[in-house]
Amino acid sequence: MSAVERKLEDIKETIASEVPNDISISDVKYEGPELVVYTRDPKKFAGDGDLIRRLASKLRKRITVRPDPDVLSRPEQAREQIRDIIPNEAGVADLDFHADTGEVVIEAEKPGMVIGRHGSTLREITQEVGWTPEVVRTPPIESSTVSNVRNFLKQERDDRRDILERVGRQIHREEMSDDEWVRITTLGCCREVGRAAFILNTPETRVLIDCGDKPGAEGEVPYLQVPEALGAGASNIDAVVLTHAHLDHSALIPLLFKYGYDGPIYCTEPTRDLMGLLTLDYLDVAAKEGRAPPYESEQVREAIKHCIPLEYGDVTDIAPDLKLTFHNAGHILGSAVSHFHVGDGLYNVAFSGDIHYDDTRLFNGAVNDFPRVETLVMESTYGGRNDFQTDQADSEETLMEVITDTIDNDGKVLIPAFAVGRSQEIMLVLEEAMRKGEIPKVPVHLDGMIWEATAIHTTYPEYLRDDLRDRIFHEDENPFLAEEFNHIDGGEEERQEVADGGPCIILSTSGMIEGGPIMSWLNHVGAEDESTLTFVGYQAQGTLGRRIQNGWDEIPMDDRGGRGGTLTLNMNVETVDGFSGHADRQGLMNFVRTMNPRPEKVLCVHGDESSVQDLSSALYHEFNMRTFAPKNLETFRFK
Amino acid sequence: MSAVERKLEDIKETIASEVPNDISISDVKYEGPELVVYTRDPKKFAGDGDLIRRLASKLRKRITVRPDPDVLSRPEQAREQIRDIIPNEAGVADLDFHADTGEVVIEAEKPGMVIGRHGSTLREITQEVGWTPEVVRTPPIESSTVSNVRNFLKQERDDRRDILERVGRQIHREEMSDDEWVRITTLGCCREVGRAAFILNTPETRVLIDCGDKPGAEGEVPYLQVPEALGAGASNIDAVVLTHAHLDHSALIPLLFKYGYDGPIYCTEPTRDLMGLLTLDYLDVAAKEGRAPPYESEQVREAIKHCIPLEYGDVTDIAPDLKLTFHNAGHILGSAVSHFHVGDGLYNVAFSGDIHYDDTRLFNGAVNDFPRVETLVMESTYGGRNDFQTDQADSEETLMEVITDTIDNDGKVLIPAFAVGRSQEIMLVLEEAMRKGEIPKVPVHLDGMIWEATAIHTTYPEYLRDDLRDRIFHEDENPFLAEEFNHIDGGEEERQEVADGGPCIILSTSGMIEGGPIMSWLNHVGAEDESTLTFVGYQAQGTLGRRIQNGWDEIPMDDRGGRGGTLTLNMNVETVDGFSGHADRQGLMNFVRTMNPRPEKVLCVHGDESSVQDLSSALYHEFNMRTFAPKNLETFRFK
Repeated sequence: MSAVERKLEDIKETIASEVPNDISISDVKYEGPELVVYTRDPKKFAGDGDLIRRLASKLRKRITVRPDPDVLSRPEQAREQIRDIIPNEAGVADLDFHADTGEVVIEAEKPGMVIGRHGSTLREITQEVGWTPEVVRTPPIESSTVSNVRNFLKQERDDRRDILERVGRQIHREEMSDDEWVRITTLGCCREVGRAAFILNTPETRVLIDCGDKPGAEGEVPYLQVPEALGAGASNIDAVVLTHAHLDHSALIPLLFKYGYDGPIYCTEPTRDLMGLLTLDYLDVAAKEGRAPPYESEQVREAIKHCIPLEYGDVTDIAPDLKLTFHNAGHILGSAVSHFHVGDGLYNVAFSGDIHYDDTRLFNGAVNDFPRVETLVMESTYGGRNDFQTDQADSEETLMEVITDTIDNDGKVLIPAFAVGRSQEIMLVLEEAMRKGEIPKVPVHLDGMIWEATAIHTTYPEYLRDDLRDRIFHEDENPFLAEEFNHIDGGEEERQEVADGGPCIILSTSGMIEGGPIMSWLNHVGAEDESTLTFVGYQAQGTLGRRIQNGWDEIPMDDRGGRGGTLTLNMNVETVDGFSGHADRQGLMNFVRTMNPRPEKVLCVHGDESSVQDLSSALYHEFNMRTFAPKNLETFRFK
Repeated sequence: MSAVERKLEDIKETIASEVPNDISISDVKYEGPELVVYTRDPKKFAGDGDLIRRLASKLRKRITVRPDPDVLSRPEQAREQIRDIIPNEAGVADLDFHADTGEVVIEAEKPGMVIGRHGSTLREITQEVGWTPEVVRTPPIESSTVSNVRNFLKQERDDRRDILERVGRQIHREEMSDDEWVRITTLGCCREVGRAAFILNTPETRVLIDCGDKPGAEGEVPYLQVPEALGAGASNIDAVVLTHAHLDHSALIPLLFKYGYDGPIYCTEPTRDLMGLLTLDYLDVAAKEGRAPPYESEQVREAIKHCIPLEYGDVTDIAPDLKLTFHNAGHILGSAVSHFHVGDGLYNVAFSGDIHYDDTRLFNGAVNDFPRVETLVMESTYGGRNDFQTDQADSEETLMEVITDTIDNDGKVLIPAFAVGRSQEIMLVLEEAMRKGEIPKVPVHLDGMIWEATAIHTTYPEYLRDDLRDRIFHEDENPFLAEEFNHIDGGEEERQEVADGGPCIILSTSGMIEGGPIMSWLNHVGAEDESTLTFVGYQAQGTLGRRIQNGWDEIPMDDRGGRGGTLTLNMNVETVDGFSGHADRQGLMNFVRTMNPRPEKVLCVHGDESSVQDLSSALYHEFNMRTFAPKNLETFRFK
């Protein structure tokens, strides 16, 4: 009997001794980080509302209880019963029965009403039908990404169960080493922005954190080939942790599967879906630009299949000596500060990922409260000594003025914006301003992936800022569904109509005018001197956006974009700062100042050379902590 | 055709175009770092004294010319001719013909006379007989280690040729990476003394530098299991470089072969032989102490078979992007400061190994003059702010007083000493003092491995201090052969005789009274209050030597050592400092101060925590350079 089997036997005995005699346990299995308990008496099990919590606390594991397949009621019968239990207002869209696991997936418009107070409705369902309910939200805006991911995972259910069981056994394997140490190796995003990738390494375990590309420098990928990463074989990586879906953190995650990686990817559910959306677009862009993509869509599917979604606050065993907990990072939907607890109290490291310290309209500010943390690996995008951003309230006022002036002039406001994050933030600003009458109510057209990204946001309102979530949950007034928002889904024809029409606001990708429908919009309205091109996000060196900001008004257009030749830009150009998804210098300092507990060491990463040096030096002088500005390919030992 | 073959073809063409038409080249092969040129006209080749040098400079390779086996004269005939050419005074002991390579190994008492002025005699031999002469010294004192190693290598000649050809092809493989960086990973001896081990890593190449044990802490071995070292497979290590033979640098080199390593070990010839002696003794001690040895003598033989000896100053390609040059380190016989030139002018790193900056009687002071060097990895054994040693002249005077007093009292002087290094230094002190009449001429008995280690020293006089070497070479007055030195080779019986006899000096291992014949000597003379136990080396915490220094005079003896039970120590105990093989604090500072060029960065290693911190801080403040006191398991990137 292997060590894993022995451990599982011990757990079975413990469960048997804890569970009342009239509840029979037919099997106990690992499924990823969870322990799944199969019972022939699911109704009795569900009857004792506290039993699962008691078991989880006793075993210090996350526990799922499933009915033994033998005792399940027939799906046709169960379907009726479930429909009877769930209130009509929940808007159940679909019930999907999986006999192999005894699960029934309930898709509903209002998952909260399916769950009930403290899970009471779910328990009632189990008690009535035996099946274990799992609830997913019907996206209020139809998202092809979400439905594709869900359908794919449904279709790959068997494979996925095998993966989860294998991962579970890996997580619960016996520790082999007497040694104790904790190291971090930097594989990218040190003294630069882009290609985020780190290895967290103990004698037992190696975890890869993020695996992104470097925008504007396709050749510069993370140093995956070194032995600390994949050089020693992909199977030496125990787990991948993805802090958020932006491509500079996620683009090369699918590549790992091409290199033979076959383990789990821990991320939040929205990060999984957004990664799917963005990496497929990444392949698309590569193909359009005639570059050989580093992997195929097949590997994106593999990545999605290997995702193990975690919620904020879940403390999860991801290796024999490693617990991972995600916390809201305030940067984009699903973005997570990733906290690692190593060993049994040995050491704690938090990776900030990208953070926004203050609340934005979309998100609560980043969490900086942990049980323990000795080392913080922190982003430094705006860590430079002069990297202070305009207050968002002031920025919003400026934006309102630009919009009002333009509309008063009968012009159109064209806003290049990133699909994920900034677009939704601007949508919230516009929705409120129109609702409150601060700007005229005009159509807001959303082009490119913005609509799809917004749909994903509305699928996961629990990841949004609490008052926004409450509005969506309780007051049923989803601002993203406001009538002024129009999805441009009619291509050039619709764009032409809009261009021929009256004043409006257009949000379109790409955010730095590097391709995408914004090129077409420039063709349509670029010549109108009553219209305004309004930048709301950072324009990187070398992008067309930056050139236009700097005064270019003769823009070379290729044929794909429209007429070809050169476009003379007559429209006004305005820049409104202050809508960044990143903490500014003050926000980064505040994140550390108010961090509880304050870490002993900070590694400043994910910023250009002067930013990381400035921030590292400032943290050292202000808080008297040990700070570092690592280079790529270095290894730091902490314990 | 592989890239290696192509390169070799190019080289053949170059050689053909450089060599006069009447000299035919039959083959060109790699043999380790050297290029071997086979010719059907060895005599003509040897006739042009400058041809090899011209080829070497053109190809930037070390070149050996060998006769094509078809054109060799018969060994019986060649033997006569060679004996005729070499002067009688050279003392030729043996001629050994190897038809496969066309080499004849000439063992002689005076290799210089076989070589002749600027190699003239060697050239004459080749011109006469066709065979390529290779000269080795007949040890003036018979050394079983040296003869065992030589016999073993002779017997394994075929295997060794295969190894060398394989290594040669590895060295001259095509570079695969466009990337350029240089990293060092610390696997041991950081913030501690012992278990020296580093990885030098470029995108192409991984080299392990040293692989030692930690005396007094058998469990604490270098972190070989991490992916940067052997974790990614032993075949990922391109080469091993051994700075010197002391066990804290060499003990686990043979273990690498148990782990599947099959590549070259670069070291000096005396380091190879001393490593053989010391690692076999290491296995012996482990067996005697009932510990499971980490490897068998078979692996020691493998290690010796894979050694590629280099001389001080030889610039040697050891990988496509790495050149290694050894320089005298002044620490023990064959010890080497190891200088690595990375890429084509990209970066230079020197590893000091263990160094002695000032000249000692045995060795010239460590070399600190390099074409270029950006980073120095430096030992810090005596790097602490108070680690100043007594001047050796003063120490010698004190030692003379102790000896004279003891002999005047009709007593014996018992000196525990390390076999390699300190014993020979003390021998030189005693020989001179007796020759000059500064102390009475009494027998000096050498016990344990001291005699054997001395024999190895006399085999390689070219590694000794220049005036000592000159004495041995030219004046024919080898101080180690002085008549007062007696090898204790008669076991307990001889020891009893010595103990029963008159005044004398006894040098015996182990140096810290941790076992070995010194235990027996304590039994024999420990009770004599006219005799003196004299420490001349550092006694580590926890050793019996240290306890006796601290005043212990009741010594538990086990049965192996003699009578068993407790020994009451009546003899005087003296400590004479100043004979260390290590630079003291001042020496380390001077090494850096006078280093040419001065490095940008220094990593202070191989010293306890306070020593490395003190030295790192002192170097920073005095020379305004970047200094570090690494931990084990860290990686530093330099370029």
